[in-house]
Amino acid sequence: MEEGAQSTQAEPGTRYDVFHTDCPARDVVDHVTSRWGVWVLISLRGKDLRFYELRDGIQGISEKMLAQTLRALVQDGLLRREVEPTTPPHVTYGLTEFGRYVAEPLTELFDRVTERLPGRGSAGKA
Amino acid sequence: MEEGAQSTQAEPGTRYDVFHTDCPARDVVDHVTSRWGVWVLISLRGKDLRFYELRDGIQGISEKMLAQTLRALVQDGLLRREVEPTTPPHVTYGLTEFGRYVAEPLTELFDRVTERLPGRGSAGKA
Repeated sequence: MEEGAQSTQAEPGTRYDVFHTDCPARDVVDHVTSRWGVWVLISLRGKDLRFYELRDGIQGISEKMLAQTLRALVQDGLLRREVEPTTPPHVTYGLTEFGRYVAEPLTELFDRVTERLPGRGSAGKA
Repeated sequence: MEEGAQSTQAEPGTRYDVFHTDCPARDVVDHVTSRWGVWVLISLRGKDLRFYELRDGIQGISEKMLAQTLRALVQDGLLRREVEPTTPPHVTYGLTEFGRYVAEPLTELFDRVTERLPGRGSAGKA
């Protein structure tokens, strides 16, 4: 039986096929779930923050990686970057409406992982 | 006013401080949201799959990266690995209960990104 040999892929349940590298949505999903994208989006849930506040809040991030991550997320329409005309200028980052919409399930994901870490109360008792 | 100088971090709203590299939950969140972890978890939502089915379904993944990703997710308690005693042995991967719990918001995240890609219908009309 050769049946199903070509239909091994799970149903994404969306209009896009993000399992393919040329899918326009895949870049965005990759940015959102990138090593640092996750923490930037979650950090900005509560309020807008300045570059140095993000840097100080997310342990282990380098300024270079933070700058790259912010640039990608602004470009995807998930973050807005606001420059106040002070001296020196203050640059603040915040979630756009789209960013907030996407950050919600990310927060839920994050809460679920921390809530039920294996071996921390949820381990089966034979 | 120095007020708030040390409290720049957004509230994670959880018992863990996953913004710190030594947090036990951070590894798991990092694996779930790793470049390939996302796609493996989403692929397994519908049904259990064999190694080669995962490899063929997720475009761009190498066998090495897939093996590493699967190992980390099994270790985190998100996936189970089942070996059938056939010749050759069939190895199947599936979500554990914890994996299913975590994959839900990941799916929601993924649906929200694809549903409202910027410039694809959600752009503000002045």
